[in-house]
Parts: sequence; C-alpha cells; structure tokens
Amino acid sequence: MKVALIGYGAMGKFIEQRLLEKGHTVAGIVSLDQLKDINEVKDDFDVMIDFSNPANLSMLLDYATKNKKPLVIATTGFSEDQIKSIYDASKLAPIVYTANFSLGVTVFEEVLKMVTPILKDTFDIEVIEKHHNKKIDAPSGTAKMLVSAMNQDGEFEEVFGREGVAKRGKEIGVHAVRGGTIVGEHSVIFAGEDEVLEIKHEAHSKNIFANGAIKAAEFLVGQEPGVYTMNDVLFSK
Amino acid sequence: MKVALIGYGAMGKFIEQRLLEKGHTVAGIVSLDQLKDINEVKDDFDVMIDFSNPANLSMLLDYATKNKKPLVIATTGFSEDQIKSIYDASKLAPIVYTANFSLGVTVFEEVLKMVTPILKDTFDIEVIEKHHNKKIDAPSGTAKMLVSAMNQDGEFEEVFGREGVAKRGKEIGVHAVRGGTIVGEHSVIFAGEDEVLEIKHEAHSKNIFANGAIKAAEFLVGQEPGVYTMNDVLFSK
Amino acid sequence: MKVALIGYGAMGKFIEQRLLEKGHTVAGIVSLDQLKDINEVKDDFDVMIDFSNPANLSMLLDYATKNKKPLVIATTGFSEDQIKSIYDASKLAPIVYTANFSLGVTVFEEVLKMVTPILKDTFDIEVIEKHHNKKIDAPSGTAKMLVSAMNQDGEFEEVFGREGVAKRGKEIGVHAVRGGTIVGEHSVIFAGEDEVLEIKHEAHSKNIFANGAIKAAEFLVGQEPGVYTMNDVLFSK
Amino acid sequence: MKVALIGYGAMGKFIEQRLLEKGHTVAGIVSLDQLKDINEVKDDFDVMIDFSNPANLSMLLDYATKNKKPLVIATTGFSEDQIKSIYDASKLAPIVYTANFSLGVTVFEEVLKMVTPILKDTFDIEVIEKHHNKKIDAPSGTAKMLVSAMNQDGEFEEVFGREGVAKRGKEIGVHAVRGGTIVGEHSVIFAGEDEVLEIKHEAHSKNIFANGAIKAAEFLVGQEPGVYTMNDVLFSK
Repeated sequence: MKVALIGYGAMGKFIEQRLLEKGHTVAGIVSLDQLKDINEVKDDFDVMIDFSNPANLSMLLDYATKNKKPLVIATTGFSEDQIKSIYDASKLAPIVYTANFSLGVTVFEEVLKMVTPILKDTFDIEVIEKHHNKKIDAPSGTAKMLVSAMNQDGEFEEVFGREGVAKRGKEIGVHAVRGGTIVGEHSVIFAGEDEVLEIKHEAHSKNIFANGAIKAAEFLVGQEPGVYTMNDVLFSK
Repeated sequence: MKVALIGYGAMGKFIEQRLLEKGHTVAGIVSLDQLKDINEVKDDFDVMIDFSNPANLSMLLDYATKNKKPLVIATTGFSEDQIKSIYDASKLAPIVYTANFSLGVTVFEEVLKMVTPILKDTFDIEVIEKHHNKKIDAPSGTAKMLVSAMNQDGEFEEVFGREGVAKRGKEIGVHAVRGGTIVGEHSVIFAGEDEVLEIKHEAHSKNIFANGAIKAAEFLVGQEPGVYTMNDVLFSK
Repeated sequence: MKVALIGYGAMGKFIEQRLLEKGHTVAGIVSLDQLKDINEVKDDFDVMIDFSNPANLSMLLDYATKNKKPLVIATTGFSEDQIKSIYDASKLAPIVYTANFSLGVTVFEEVLKMVTPILKDTFDIEVIEKHHNKKIDAPSGTAKMLVSAMNQDGEFEEVFGREGVAKRGKEIGVHAVRGGTIVGEHSVIFAGEDEVLEIKHEAHSKNIFANGAIKAAEFLVGQEPGVYTMNDVLFSK
Repeated sequence: MKVALIGYGAMGKFIEQRLLEKGHTVAGIVSLDQLKDINEVKDDFDVMIDFSNPANLSMLLDYATKNKKPLVIATTGFSEDQIKSIYDASKLAPIVYTANFSLGVTVFEEVLKMVTPILKDTFDIEVIEKHHNKKIDAPSGTAKMLVSAMNQDGEFEEVFGREGVAKRGKEIGVHAVRGGTIVGEHSVIFAGEDEVLEIKHEAHSKNIFANGAIKAAEFLVGQEPGVYTMNDVLFSK
C-alpha cells in the first residue's frame, strides 16, 4: 500500500515509521516543513491518511473526489459545515470518518451493543472511566459514546456521582476518576443477582490511534464511495 | 408457568422460593421426603426442572417423551450413555441441557466468540480464573469452556503457568488462582499494542445457576423438541 | 474460651457455629427465645459477644463492670448517651467497640495511614466503592472511614462525582457505584506519574463481621479495662 | 541540587530534563559523546546519578570515596565482586544501591511487610504479574522481590501455575501473565473467608525509575556514609 501522509507531528512520524515496518510505502508527506499541497505528491499512492488539522479538509476532499482516492480522516475539531462536506464528498470517494480509531474501543462498543439488550432488564449498568489529572471535561468522550451505545432508546437516566440519600432508579451511573498521568481506562459493569460481568479497556498510549488509522487505510483501498467507521473496518464481511 | 421440581436440596428450595416470587406455581416436588415419582404429581404442569442427581434421569426422560413435557436438566455427572439418552429423548421433547446455567457466563462465551476472530491476530490472549482454596482441579470447567470458545481451530497452545525462561509463543496462558472462599471469577485479557481489553465475570453465589434454570424453563415452554443450551435461551430470536 | 452470646439472629447463630468449630464453648445465649437476662447464664464464661440491639446495652455494661467481664459490642445504632456509657464502663472492664469488625478493612485502614503521608504530595487519591442497588446512602460508612484515615488534616476537599468542566484540585474523588447484589467493595487508587498503586477490599458476605468479633473476643480475654478497636486487636503487640 | 549525570541514553536525557524542571542544575554529563571521565566535570556538584553501565563503576566509586561525594547507582548487571566493592566504598561515601527505584513498588513492599504477618495465618496469598510478550523470564524480578518480602521465613512453597489435580497447600501461587506491550503490573491477593484484600501496582513507563533516582539523590545529599535503598529514601525519619 502506498500512502500519502498529511500531518507530520508526533503522530504523523509514528505512522510513517509503522507503515514502513509493515512493508507499506510513504509516497509523500504534506506538512508545514514538507510538501505544501497534496497535489505536489508526485508518486502515485493508494490512500491518504490525515493527522493534521481542520484547515486542510477542503483541499483533501477536493483531491479525493476528483481522483476517487480513499481518505482516512484522523483529524478532529471540524465545524458542522465541514462535517457536512465530508458526507457530500463521500458520494464520490470512500472515506473513513469515525469518533474513535482504537481497535479495542471499537470492539468494546460492539460488545455493548450485543450484550446490553440481553442483560439490561436484570442487571444494573455502571460506567467507570479513569484519566489523567489534567483532563478538564467529564465524563470522557469515549465514555459518552459507550453510554450512548447502551442507552439508544434513552430509557436510562445518566447520573454522574452519588452523595447523601441516593436511591438507585432506572439509571446508568457514570463515574469520572481523575489522577496522575492515566492515559485512558473505561470499564462497564453489569451487576446482577450474585454475578457481575465487567468489560474494561485500557489505553497505554496514543499510538493506538495510529495503528487504527493504518488498519482503516488498509480496509479503505478498493471500497465503494461512502463514509465508514472503525466498526465497518473491523466488523464488515 | 406451572413447574414440577425434581430435587429439594438447598438449590431446589431456592428455586421454589424464587418461582413463587416471580408469580409461577410449583405443581409438585419429587425428592426423598416428598413425592417419590414424577407420575405422582397430580396437578398439571408446563415444565420440569431437575436439580437432583443422575439416578432420576431415565424416569424424567420417559415422562418427557411420553407426555411431550419440556425438561430443564440442571443435574451434572451423567455417564456417556446417559448423555446419549438425553439426545435421543430430545427428538420427542424440548430439553435444556447445558454446561453452564449462569446468564453472565453464557453472555461471556458469546462475547468471546464474537471478538476473538477480530482480535486474535494482533492481541495476545490470557485467562485468569480464581476459586476457593478447596477446589482440587485446575483450571476450572468454565475456564476450559471459555478457552474452547476462543481456540476452536486449536491454533493456540494452552499453557498453565510460566517459570524460568518462558518465551511466549502462539499460546493462551491459563492461570488458576486459588484462595479463601472465592466462589468463582473468570477474566479473559486481550493484550495488544498499548491497549488491553478485558472481560471478567464474578459469581458471588451458586444462586446464579438457579436463576438461569428458571430462565431456561420460561424459554422452553412452547419450544419444538430438541436440545437447547443457555446460549439458545438468551440469544435465540 | 467460654462465651456468652447476646443475640441469636442469623449472625448470632453463625457465631455459635463458628465458635464450636474453633473449639470454644458457648456458656449461654441471651435472646427473645432463649435466656432473658445475662444474669441467667449459669455456667462461667470468659467474654460476652453482643450481636443483638441497643436495648440490651445497659444490662451488658452493668454486668461487665460488676463482674469485670470483657464485652465485645458488635451491635450498632447507639445514641450519644449510650456511647458515653460505653466509655464510662470501660474504666472497669475491657470492651471492644469499633466502627468495623472486618479484618481486611482494618488492615486496609492501617495501610492507608502508613502510605498516605508518603504518597500524598506526588500521587492523586481517588476512592471507588461498590454496593448493591438497594443501598440508599452514599458514600458508604466504610468509604468515609477510609477517607478520614487519609485526610486527617482536612487538607483535601472531598468530591462525589464529576460532570462537565471539572478541573481536579487538591481533592479526593469518592465514587459510589451501585448495582445488583454487591455486598461491598472498596478501592483506593494512588495515581502518580506513570504509576498507579491500588488497594482494594471485597466483602463477599456479612460473615466477615462474625469472624472479626470472635477474633476480638479472643484478644479481649485478659486485657486491662479500656475501649479497644479492631486496630488494637490486630496490631497491638 | 547540582548533579553530575553519568549515562546519557533515553533515561539520562529524561533525568536531565526532569532535573531542570524541578529547579536543579546539571553540572556535567559523562558519556561516550560528552565528558569522558567524572574528573573532567569542572563545576562543583552535590551528587552523582549513574544510569550508564557496569564499566563505569570503579571510576565512580573511586571518585565518591576520595571526594566524599554521594552516588546514586541506577545501573544494573554488576558482578559479585563489583557489588562487594559498592559495600566497601559505602564506608566512606553515602550510596543508594537498590533493587528497584519505583516509589510505588517500594511502598508496595513495605505494605506487604506490614500486613503479611497479620494475615498469613487466615488468608491465602497469591501473586499475579503481567508483562509484555517479549519478556523471556518468569516470574519478574519485582514479583520475586515481593514474594521474598512475604516469605522471609521460607514457610510457603512457591508454585508457578496449576494444572490437573492441584490441591492447595501452604503455598504462594505466582502467576506470570504475558501479552502485548504491558510495561509491568503486580498484584498481591490476600484471600480469606468471604473477603479479599488486593494490593496492585501498575507501571506505565520506565520514567518511574528516573523519578525515583532523583528522589534518591535529593535524599542522599547530607547523609552519612552507607548503603541506602529506596525503602530508606521513602521511609526513614
């Protein structure tokens, strides 16, 4: 697989190294101190991986639609208009655009979709997530995504702590632990009568997102136009 | 649901109490100090639940096949001939016969069947089980069942401890922790590059088997003849 | 050891059985359907264990002070006046009066007293406790006791959940998880730079309080008058 | 604090950066591409930190004894003769020489020394350690150290896995889990009657050793000659 890389920060460099280890080729790199534009990449390539910033989006979508080139978008922070433009472009080119690139978290979410309907009437659901002491939002975006996967009908109230008199109702408790330099840990507990089933994911570095983006690129080559998520990458076919 | 109970030890009594709590009826109880034979149960019933011992099997299968009555078998320790007779009888009556009645463990097994094919090439699999200090076999039957679900092609060697020079190969490590009065805990770890996905089940009493048997009985009423497992009970339809 | 038992509910019966297993003698039992008064116990005994209710306290303290008999108080729910009377009586008789009879929790508390001063400047402290879905107060009394052991100078604010923008300050987060029939689990996390130390206790039944009360009785025989806690029982000498 | 650094690999560079962040000064660096000899460091300094290799030991001990300079030895792999020379030199200079520089593991070891005597008669002890799939020895050195702290009288047999008929005797089970890129996790379980106390340490990077070495250096300045461990650093006074 020949890859055009957009973005050459820590994550871009890690992806480059990992691509070479896996026998892939880097056809060109677009970033401040490399090529300025995706059109300057002279060698042919199969897929683009974007770990840069939202400013590059329109350039990449233009290139993808004109050249029918697959695009993996691992940049975050887009406006609503930009997100709409991704879906528009996906009519002409295959694009991976996903809330999360971690393999483990993607599998986690699918597991929850499978087991929640079976357990939710007789087991109570609680979520514990742990992150470093600098994180200022709670709960984490991943925790919210996992809760959404379990609460698709909105039947559970979501509570974010308990103090004093706190009778448990039809609810999912979501607990945000903060401390040290913890990269990210998410645990979902199904507590029933005399048994507990727990599913837990620990991320030990941000490299897991790079590995997911490469897996997405491998998947995307040869796909039909459309927007794909990591769930499609791992679970389709 | 009207139930005939076979066996009236601690588990039988717990099932009786739980059936009544759930609004079901106990039509009759067969045990040493109650009715001697299932044919002595005068009231009509919908399903039999057997928590007794292997000696009652032929009587129960006879009754089930002659009367087309559903039978939940929660007794263990059958001979090979007895097991064959269960399958023979299942041509005429619906029977639940399963290695494990726990809801949580059944879900656990299904989760492993789903995620193992996706993760096994890039994640290492290890199993830790914990039981009380009186348990003399290792690993537990449940641990073996979980490993089987992950190693259906026999591609992984199963190792049961590591000491000295122990280079990890294509293997699943299975670790049997023994201590105190732990009822039963099983954990499967998928360890990849900078991420770990763990699925864990804790049993806090044997009541979970009674609850599973009742759920199985509720499922079995109205089913076609055949042998069903807890996986069928929870995941069919 | 010869024991007079006060209270003969589930816990009293369990203590009786356990005392006999350990080779001790039950000299008499005071309860509604047994002896009415501690003075009716005809056989000599070494120590009293009270698992009854607050109404018996003055009778027991009277007996203890007049006869210099050791008393283990495992009843809860005393008024302030009653608590004062315990301390008054302790000038004449040795008494175990303690917030918690679990061996494991007592050790847990001592561990926290040892490690917190060493870690608190460079590690963040968080507490997670898990209990059944019927518990209506949060956090648990044991969690409060553990937090007190770590926050003796009141230097940390105690927070009971995080939602939205929640910058971590000089605080201890205390998270009350509620679900199923969980008897009681307490975990304290010290999260530092790239390392986490966790101490966790799981109670699987209330029998642990009975075992602690017996251990307390064994300790108390031969002690000087005074009030003792489980910390004294386990860590003195 | 003014520090002479010996060794300038990844760990040496991390220590340099961390020293500067903490307001300390680096007086000189001895390594292949920097100063060749500790005597070439022209600026005055308070303490030496050695993260290099065993070949530098005699040079450093010479310097330490002649100049009464404190020395933190964070290099490993010394011969028995070299270890003896460290103890000889410690008659003239204060030296930190320790099996482990992690704060958390040092605290862990002290906790075990405190609680094991209290729990070992009524609780069973088991150890689970987890490391990456490239580690070829089992159990880990840290696990061995923790077991030693609990088994000082050699009263427990150490077993490294259980398979088949495995009746638990007076033993400590030590389980080596291997998978993915796990940096290092150690868990000690005390399992009693209906309660479990667990102490667990997770290392998320090797930076924890650098932080420990700096803490050791801060401690060592002004100490009397002698050999000190991290236990002394954290728990003395």
